[in-house]
Amino acid sequence: MPPRNKAVESMKELPVHIQLHPENDKTLYEQIYEQIRDEIRSGNLLRDEKLPSARFLSEYLQVSRTTVDMAYGQLVSEGYVEARARKGYFVSAYEELYAIGASAAPREEKTTGGSDGRSFARYDFSPTAIDMRYFPYATWKKITKNILVDANSKMFSLGEPQGDLALRTTICRYLHGSRGVNCEPGQIIIGAGNDYLLLLLEKILGRRIHVAMENPTYTRAYRIFRSCGYPVSLIPVDENGMRVDCLSRTDARVAYVMPSHQYPTGVSMPIGRRMDLLNWASGQPDRYLIEDDYDSEFRYKGKPLPSLQASDSGGRVVYIGTFSKAIAPAIRISYMVLPYPLLERYRSECGFYSCTVSRIDQTILNEFIQDGYFERYLNKMRKQYKEKHDLVLNMLRPFEPDFRISGSNAGLHVVLTDQRGRTEEELARMALERDVRVYRMQDFRMEVSDESEQAPDRQQDRAGDKEKTDGPAMMILGYGGLTADKITEGIGLIRQAWM
Amino acid sequence: MPPRNKAVESMKELPVHIQLHPENDKTLYEQIYEQIRDEIRSGNLLRDEKLPSARFLSEYLQVSRTTVDMAYGQLVSEGYVEARARKGYFVSAYEELYAIGASAAPREEKTTGGSDGRSFARYDFSPTAIDMRYFPYATWKKITKNILVDANSKMFSLGEPQGDLALRTTICRYLHGSRGVNCEPGQIIIGAGNDYLLLLLEKILGRRIHVAMENPTYTRAYRIFRSCGYPVSLIPVDENGMRVDCLSRTDARVAYVMPSHQYPTGVSMPIGRRMDLLNWASGQPDRYLIEDDYDSEFRYKGKPLPSLQASDSGGRVVYIGTFSKAIAPAIRISYMVLPYPLLERYRSECGFYSCTVSRIDQTILNEFIQDGYFERYLNKMRKQYKEKHDLVLNMLRPFEPDFRISGSNAGLHVVLTDQRGRTEEELARMALERDVRVYRMQDFRMEVSDESEQAPDRQQDRAGDKEKTDGPAMMILGYGGLTADKITEGIGLIRQAWM
Repeated sequence: MPPRNKAVESMKELPVHIQLHPENDKTLYEQIYEQIRDEIRSGNLLRDEKLPSARFLSEYLQVSRTTVDMAYGQLVSEGYVEARARKGYFVSAYEELYAIGASAAPREEKTTGGSDGRSFARYDFSPTAIDMRYFPYATWKKITKNILVDANSKMFSLGEPQGDLALRTTICRYLHGSRGVNCEPGQIIIGAGNDYLLLLLEKILGRRIHVAMENPTYTRAYRIFRSCGYPVSLIPVDENGMRVDCLSRTDARVAYVMPSHQYPTGVSMPIGRRMDLLNWASGQPDRYLIEDDYDSEFRYKGKPLPSLQASDSGGRVVYIGTFSKAIAPAIRISYMVLPYPLLERYRSECGFYSCTVSRIDQTILNEFIQDGYFERYLNKMRKQYKEKHDLVLNMLRPFEPDFRISGSNAGLHVVLTDQRGRTEEELARMALERDVRVYRMQDFRMEVSDESEQAPDRQQDRAGDKEKTDGPAMMILGYGGLTADKITEGIGLIRQAWM
Repeated sequence: MPPRNKAVESMKELPVHIQLHPENDKTLYEQIYEQIRDEIRSGNLLRDEKLPSARFLSEYLQVSRTTVDMAYGQLVSEGYVEARARKGYFVSAYEELYAIGASAAPREEKTTGGSDGRSFARYDFSPTAIDMRYFPYATWKKITKNILVDANSKMFSLGEPQGDLALRTTICRYLHGSRGVNCEPGQIIIGAGNDYLLLLLEKILGRRIHVAMENPTYTRAYRIFRSCGYPVSLIPVDENGMRVDCLSRTDARVAYVMPSHQYPTGVSMPIGRRMDLLNWASGQPDRYLIEDDYDSEFRYKGKPLPSLQASDSGGRVVYIGTFSKAIAPAIRISYMVLPYPLLERYRSECGFYSCTVSRIDQTILNEFIQDGYFERYLNKMRKQYKEKHDLVLNMLRPFEPDFRISGSNAGLHVVLTDQRGRTEEELARMALERDVRVYRMQDFRMEVSDESEQAPDRQQDRAGDKEKTDGPAMMILGYGGLTADKITEGIGLIRQAWM
């Protein structure tokens, strides 16, 4: 899909009408942003149309380069425009914008380095999208209304730093019942999203902690560790998950793992490997495991394994989970269960950090869970996702033996491993030519860190730019955010493209 | 006020009835917590009564030491019990608990090191308490209800990392109108509280940044910088604020200042000193000022000076503010205005961090401001606080010339400087003997950091334990959270104690 308009730099006219009114209430930045946005919304600027460069536009409009940069930054951050490396700014496919906004999921992955940049496609098999159509908005509103009726100044005061005891008690029981997590409410810390909890965990663990991660992995966590200045060792994943033999050969003190459903490979770690991991952690004082149990709620085959934390008798597991995936991305409530040694450190060194979630939001969520709505909603979504999952596997049957299908026991995506020697770039491009976006495993593979504190950002860039993998091409198809019709049509198109 | 019951360790009986039921739904920890809490609530355990030591109780109840520690930790965190260093656990004054909970303010300061520990007093002149009696709860509920009526899946999706554009635009206009802040919405980052924004700022500024702070200062910010591993230089404050001549002699790259109303001295920085500060910042590339404009909303005398950011032509000021003080502590919404060089760094290195405030909460706040309710509420509170402020100054008139009164032009507290050579300990103790709590300046004075990365926690401890100051005793009286009657009675008692 080449840009339609390569020669705009040399044009005398802009492809977009912008009229600046300095006497206007709005800043110049806002005026530029709004006028381009409206041109896109109205269809005057078409998908893939190239926008003038920031330098050109600032000269043309006689405004500072910064003003134009801010306007473009805003357009990019809202998805109207996409920036392609060394090519410039292009209009995104607007008709998809609302749908994408609506299903934006917490795990928005970096997907730079692809030949397709961040183009929107009619069929987007994003592994991070979720389905919000069945969310009980009316119930949520009712609970909110009831809580506010009773609200007094206490509700509007600052709560406990760890989060309200009532919600922590509820989460404690939920985790014990659903995931076998053994903890007391006093071990739970509530925070506004996993990102924040990882920042807080940095303060508890200390500086320059050597972390090991699975490779491929959840790239956002990788970037957070790197932005904390942590040296990161990348450990290969086999069919049983993180290879503990490789982990043992590093100097890592902390390992970040997703044992229930590794992201993005979909591998579940069996009990033997879990024991190896726990043994590794017990091997030296002050070693810890961070268990990210990000989508444990959805499992279709096999007996659900309890969490790694459930098997931890030595106080070595930090358990992290979120309501973003199971309820809604807007519910900025995650939780972290600290083992006692770290809890003690939290209390003595970090107990002064205020809770990042308001008491009102905590109370709403607590009632949503306690009154049984959460369980009912989870059951409904399990059924919905199971139907999509079965449809996907059914539609993918003709793909064998050209592709091996894996990672389908749980979660909201499957992995297709090519058996015909094609590259991930080729497969992604062929799909995109039919307006279908699939995801490449290599975008989740990090490069081995040199463990130096120098230029971590450059390392992050390299990680995203990596173009080659050693094994066969692996493509990721997420189905959480697509309707059954879209799944059927989309996989049909992929079949035409690849088979 | 000695503890009533020093000999409990040797007693055969517990002062509290605890019956554990292992078959109960609740954990042992919860059972211990709840039974002690209920004993306190019911008055069976009296204020200042000593609780059994954790070791003794765990032996007595045959439960693990950890279980008892967790129960005590919970009681302490909720204010039922206070831990006194090397003395044990004591019951807090329960009748004050609700009132204190209701007016708990965002700037809860560390006040260890006092002979009085964290005792509650009938008249608490906390400089951090605010008055929530006039908050328009009904309006807030109405807005919330209306927003939820229109709510769709978009409202429940994850918003922009920097915060919703609509709210950022509103804040931008508010800051320009009220504080002269010059910025575009694209420079604003919304986050769940100042603590979080400072953690994010650490990621933007980088590791091991040498920070300078006023001394005395906002201790929470000091602790955050120390927990980030930042070397901190402490700069004396004179009647014009931070001494820039002293600042210039350090290697600091970033200075954290409160120019409008220094906390806790109450000093306002005049324009000349502000220019010195800005010149210092321009003196070398990559020097920045963090302006914490924490209670700029309330000013009683003199023309309000605009923010430091308003005079910054070189892009050297990071402006931080919060709605916790002006609206309610529960509104976990703060904002940070980044100058362009730091904004660029944020976008390239930290843009992946998700916003910590939900879209629903952002939308409610946006409407509250846009529909004029915020301004009306601020006007009402200015009037309320002005009345309290005038009452306080009137009541304090007989204190001169034994005390010099300062810091009264703005904010919610005043500073009394003793002219008779008494110590802060003496004055605090004399007041507490009449059931009045006043605050000592020394608790906000940090010790000069040795700028080593070793044992920052020990440094923090020392900072709180410091018992001696060089100058005369300075006592802090906050009046925001007290009624006019309490102010009158309380200052009357202080007068009896001190004069």
